[in-house]
Order: sequence, then structure tokens, then C-alpha cells
Amino acid sequence: MYRKAVLTVRMYDLILKKRNGNALSKEEIRFMVEEYTRGNIPDYQMSAMMMAVYFQGMNAEETLELTLAMEESGEILDLSAISGIKTDKHSTGGVGDKTSLALAPMVAACGLPVAKMSGRGLGHTGGTIDKLESFPGFTTELTPRRFIQNVNRIGIAIMGQSGELAPADKKLYALRDVTATVDNMSLIASSIMSKKLAAGADAIVLDVKTGSGAFMKKEKDAYALAEEMLRIGRGAGKRMAAVISDMDQPLGYAVGNALEVREAIAALRGEGPADLTELCLTLGTQMLLAGGRAEQEEQARELLLKVLRDGSALKKLAEFVEAQGGDPAAVYDETLLPASSLRENCVSSEEGYVSHIACDEVGLCSLILGGGRETKESAIDLSVGIVLLKKKGDYVKRGEALAVLHANDREKLKSAMERLKKAYVISEEPPLKTPLIKGILR
Amino acid sequence: MYRKAVLTVRMYDLILKKRNGNALSKEEIRFMVEEYTRGNIPDYQMSAMMMAVYFQGMNAEETLELTLAMEESGEILDLSAISGIKTDKHSTGGVGDKTSLALAPMVAACGLPVAKMSGRGLGHTGGTIDKLESFPGFTTELTPRRFIQNVNRIGIAIMGQSGELAPADKKLYALRDVTATVDNMSLIASSIMSKKLAAGADAIVLDVKTGSGAFMKKEKDAYALAEEMLRIGRGAGKRMAAVISDMDQPLGYAVGNALEVREAIAALRGEGPADLTELCLTLGTQMLLAGGRAEQEEQARELLLKVLRDGSALKKLAEFVEAQGGDPAAVYDETLLPASSLRENCVSSEEGYVSHIACDEVGLCSLILGGGRETKESAIDLSVGIVLLKKKGDYVKRGEALAVLHANDREKLKSAMERLKKAYVISEEPPLKTPLIKGILR
Repeated sequence: MYRKAVLTVRMYDLILKKRNGNALSKEEIRFMVEEYTRGNIPDYQMSAMMMAVYFQGMNAEETLELTLAMEESGEILDLSAISGIKTDKHSTGGVGDKTSLALAPMVAACGLPVAKMSGRGLGHTGGTIDKLESFPGFTTELTPRRFIQNVNRIGIAIMGQSGELAPADKKLYALRDVTATVDNMSLIASSIMSKKLAAGADAIVLDVKTGSGAFMKKEKDAYALAEEMLRIGRGAGKRMAAVISDMDQPLGYAVGNALEVREAIAALRGEGPADLTELCLTLGTQMLLAGGRAEQEEQARELLLKVLRDGSALKKLAEFVEAQGGDPAAVYDETLLPASSLRENCVSSEEGYVSHIACDEVGLCSLILGGGRETKESAIDLSVGIVLLKKKGDYVKRGEALAVLHANDREKLKSAMERLKKAYVISEEPPLKTPLIKGILR
Repeated sequence: MYRKAVLTVRMYDLILKKRNGNALSKEEIRFMVEEYTRGNIPDYQMSAMMMAVYFQGMNAEETLELTLAMEESGEILDLSAISGIKTDKHSTGGVGDKTSLALAPMVAACGLPVAKMSGRGLGHTGGTIDKLESFPGFTTELTPRRFIQNVNRIGIAIMGQSGELAPADKKLYALRDVTATVDNMSLIASSIMSKKLAAGADAIVLDVKTGSGAFMKKEKDAYALAEEMLRIGRGAGKRMAAVISDMDQPLGYAVGNALEVREAIAALRGEGPADLTELCLTLGTQMLLAGGRAEQEEQARELLLKVLRDGSALKKLAEFVEAQGGDPAAVYDETLLPASSLRENCVSSEEGYVSHIACDEVGLCSLILGGGRETKESAIDLSVGIVLLKKKGDYVKRGEALAVLHANDREKLKSAMERLKKAYVISEEPPLKTPLIKGILR
């Protein structure tokens, strides 16, 4: 009790220091993170500190130290038993983002080991792990030993994120989430990077999304976040690159777990939507460069196109599914994937160009249909979701279908249908084209 | 539990609103104070809110509403059974501030009822209540009935502050105290005023101190705080005035409980230190004006001088002490007051003018000697303290005494002696004279 009181007094001084606009030292940040994780600094002091950080910011050294302290608050994955440069990819998230499902087998097929931790997450659809569970029998509950064996044998493994990874971040994020202290670049960047660093990869490629469906609505903020994360990663000795990509409309056409798996398989067959394929090629190029599998961008891109053309990327997905207990036949036979009982078109009542698709609203439709989690305890319906037929810039006639809804419940279908209709904006003039790839930071 | 979660979500929105620089509505402030007091809003949300207020401020309406909500969070004293305009005085505190001890009998002797709540408080010396307990038998544990009876009969009563007064402020202040969110004018003003308003007086005169020994080090800040409190008081329908007074050196010569009582008695005999007497006359004048006992300043001052000259103020102190169980003989015979066993001079090792007395350090000496409380549970030694012999501007020779220390413990005496010596700064040139009364706001 006495020790706790002393720590509380010291934490008071740190809050005051930050409140007054001064930088915290490395030792002070370590102290704060370690004692907070141990429960010796109370939530009410930490939330005051987070609000002071919101207003006064943290410099590059403080941000790096915060990240490292959170990374080291728990288990750090040791991937040294995997030969080669281990490369990871992280997306800041968006609607219809099935990139990992296609990208990981592509990169692995190019001979770069992919050793990935993924989360289930809350939101519009499940996380990568949920989506992969569309393959009957598939599991991400691997022991670290099996995880490493799989990467060494077939070049790819994906493991469910352990609760022991960066527990300080978990505790701190939960607090920030209820005290309006999430929106700070240093805090967002350190939260993401602490988990990525603990996951043990040597090279990390970031997909920072921007637009109406992204966490970073403004392009400027997406760049700022990317730069902050690159700085942290490099400070921690990692090879880093970041791609700023568009999330002003869903990526590809499918939104919903099994529907997205189908689209990712199509991409691996070379028949995927142009935007999804392009994003995979761009991110994959950066991964091959960071991982030392290629020297030049064109060379990397050629390698990736080759594994798509010769079917080896698709075959890698099948190997990967089989290695984690899933049925590889489902990679070649879509009827083995979960499918919904109801399908209904969402029809346009106007004629003109699709000038905007409210991205968050499409995501919400997927959630309403049962494709996402509202709370950690929610069950997910892997079969439901939306397949868009029209995207931004497409011309649509009155009575023509904008999208197909996949559902298992008439009530939910009705409510999602109403919502989806309103998510489309139809105009007489075609909208300006926005590029998918906004920039690449290396 | 469900209700609590809903309240937590709503509080989140309020934190966000304030963080983004928007004003909270009356209803929102009420909600926040009421539910926080009930324990339905967690400390970690309130501390984030307080830090957001530190950075974004509160406007006059928000500050008034916060004060009223805190006032109404507990019991509000009903003084309507006391005839006349009930007048209260509040000091923001300083070293050697025994003003209430002399002022209250002076004002009561002029026929204005003084119905005062006082606290014990932490700090260099005890609060007004502790000091009054120097009179053997004296008690401030009055029932509200007896309190009112006393005021109606002899014009004066002082009661210990009840825990039921403004409990929201008590809870909030304790939180601010450990989260570096004390230093905000709106929050300081509302904290003081919520208790003053709940104490039920019709008129309130504020003594806002400034200087090295005051909470408000800068004169500008003292004015800002005074104006904020006047605005709140008037908004709540009270008659208000404020005096800005100097606290760059201790008030009078005595610091310590019984020592200060002696000095206050001297002031009532017309033999007090010039600064103490002047401050009592200035504050008393404002109280008589606010209480309607005088129309003009000169008239009020004459009334106060008269009750000092004719002995009726001193007599009023004796009546007051007797009415609350104390021995009135001690008012006329100082040997009946607590006295220490050890007295030792603090001697100057230099010759020159006293150019500065580190006010807080003198207070700390009193605390070291045992005259104040470090924690709520500490016992106070009423007899110990310091009597200054030299104040700012006085000339001192080498070997001449600067002050007398009153102690009951050789170790404590030694440690206080060293500290006190360092509190005096001796220079060749005399210091600039600073006025005691910086300004009066009405």
C-alpha cells in the first residue's frame, strides 16, 4: 500500500510535467507503462495523462519509448527459428478489406516466409481469422512450435493473436476508448506498433487507409500516421514501408466473411476485382523488397504476377488451409464454403452515375445481417454480407440492381436493404476518379 | 449495471464535447455532477474531463452551473431563522492568517450577524477551528439549532464544517488533487464557492491573497480568481465583494495556533500589528457595506474603529468564547492559553535590510514544530510556532534576533531553526515597499 502511494505521487509529477508541455524521459515512460500494467497506477491518473498527451502531444523519442515499453509488457514472439526475413503486413482497416487472404499466399509463393498474427476484432465483418474459418475445419489455434514448423515447411502460417501480446496496450486502449483519448497520432501509432513489434517480424509493410470508410478520414492524417509508424518501426530496428490506399468505397465488391474469401480466391486465380489485385501487387511488391526477395519494384511485381499466372499462389492457399486443418478442396470448389439461404437484389430507384458509396454504411449493413460482432461475445454468421454490383463511377439505370444482399433472416435483410439503398448516391455527372494508391512511403 | 454503462457512454460524449472545445449545457453539467457523486460515473472518466477542462476552460455559465450543482449535491444550511443579513468571509489562505479571529468579533460588535462555517484543514497551522480550540473548553461542535440561537443572542457563532456540505466538491477535489487538474480558475472558484453557498450566508466577502505565500503567486491570477468568484456569487444571488491582499510575507508576526490567537486578541485591544489591523478594517468595511450596516466606506471604518477603541469587539470575543464552552478569562489573561516549553531566538548572521521572507518556508517551520497537520489524522500542538521579530524592510544587525521559535521538542526546534534562517534574505539595499491591500472589487 505504501509503495502504491509513492508511485501515485510520482505519477502525479509526470501528469503535471506532460500537462505543462514537457517531454517525458525514457525512464519516466517505462515507469508509467510498467506500473500501470501491474495495477500500481490507477486508471484515473492514466486517463488524465492520456488527455494531457492529447493536448500536448509526444515527440518521436517519447512515442518510440511508449511503443517499446508496451511491446515489452508481455510476451515477444521469437521467430528466430524461421529462416529468412520474416515479413508482416498491417492494415488500419476498412470495409471489404480481404487483402491478407490473397496477399499472404502470393508472397509466400514468391518464397518469402509469412508468419502472421491476426485478430478477430470487432466491426463490420470478422477479422482475418474469422474469414479463414470459412474453410471447414480451419483453425488458427496453433502452438508456437507448430506455427514455426508450418512456416519453415510451406512458407506460411497465421496464428490467432494471444492475449499475452502487449497487455499494456490492451489495458491502455480500453481506457482511452472510454475517455475520448483515442484520437492522437502518437497514441494510435504506438498502440498498433507495440503489437506488431511483439509479433516478431523483421520487416513490416503498412497499409494505411484513408477516406470515408477509414479511421483516418483525411489523407493528410493518413500520411501523418504512416510516418509516425515508420519512425517507430525503424527506431525499433525493423525494415519498414507504408502504402497509403483509398477507402472511400469498399475494396473489391464483396463485404462479408465467406463472400470475401470467394473474392480473394478469385484474385488468386487472376480473376479478382482490379482494385483488390492492384493493392495486393503494391503491398506485395513492398513486402518482397523489404524482405530482400527482389531488388527493384518491377522485378518484385513480375514475381507476384508470375505466381498468380502459374497458379502457385492459389496452390499455396490450398497448402496453407490444409496445414491448419481446413479442407483444401474448398479453395477449388466454392460450394464447400458457407452460403446464405436468402439472396435479394438492392435495386436503384434512380438513373445516373454512382457518385458516392457511404462506406461505413455498407459495413453497417454487413453487421446488421450478422456478419460482424457488436460485442466480443457475439457469434458471427460467416455466410451473410453484401456483393456490390455497381461501384463509384458506374452508370446505373432505374430498376437495375446496385448490389446483392446475402442473408439468413428476413427481418435483418429488410433492415439492411433500406440502409444500403441510402448508402448509394446517384448523380447526373460522373464523379472524379480517385486513385487507389495515394502514395508509397519507404 | 446496465444503467451505469449507459451513463458511462453519455459521459464519454461529454468528455469529447469538452475536449473539442465546446461548452456543456446546464443539463449536461447537472448530469455529470449528480451521477459522479452517486458513483455512477467512474473516476477515470471524470479525471479525463477535468484535464479537458484544464485545457479548454469553462465559460461563466458552465462555471456557475458547476458550482450550483456541487452546492446542491448535499445539505444547504438554512439560516433564515437568523434575523438580518448574514455575512460570511472567505480567505484563500496564507501564512499567519488569523484574520477571522479578530474580524468576526469586530463585525459582530458592529451589529452584523456573523454565522460562519470553518474548517480544520491541512497545512502550516491549523484552521480557524483549531486556533479557537486554544481557548480551554471551546467547541465548534454545535447543533444547527444552537448555532442559530447563538447568532440571534450574541451576534456570532462559528461551526465546524459538516461533511455533508457540497460532497460533490469533496469527491471531485480529491480526484483533481492527484491528477494535476487543480490549476484552473473555473474549477478553483467553483470548488470554493460551492461550499460557501451551501453555508447559507446572504453576503460573502472574499480575501484573495497573492504573493509567494499564497496559492495565487501572481497578482493577475488573484484578480482573475476574485472576479470568477464574484461572478459566481452574484449569479447565485449573493451580495459580493473581494479584497486582493498581499501574502508575500506572513500576515502579522505570529505563525502558530495559540500564538496567532494572542496576536488576534492584541489586535482587538487596538495593539495588533499594523497589517493585520488594516486587513481587518478593510474586510470589515466590505462586510458592513454588503450587510447593509453602513452606506459609506468611511462610516463603516469609523464603526469598526469605535468597537476596537471602546473594547466592545474584545468583549464580543469573550462572549463568543463563553457561548461555545470556552473560558472567557483567557481573552484577558494570556497565561491561560497553551504555551510551549522551549523558546529560542533565530539569530541573523548578516547585517542589512530584510529584503525577502520565504513565506512558504516559515509555514513549513510551523509544520515541522508540530503546529500543522500533514495528514487528516495528525494531532496538532497548539502551543508551538514562530513569532517574527523582523519583517520585510526592517534593518537587522549581525547577532540580532530575526524571530523566536516556540517548541516542545529539541530535535524539531533544531530542524525548524535551520530552515527559518534560510527563509530570510538580507540585502544592503532596502526592498521596495509593497502595499498590503492591492485592490478592492465590488
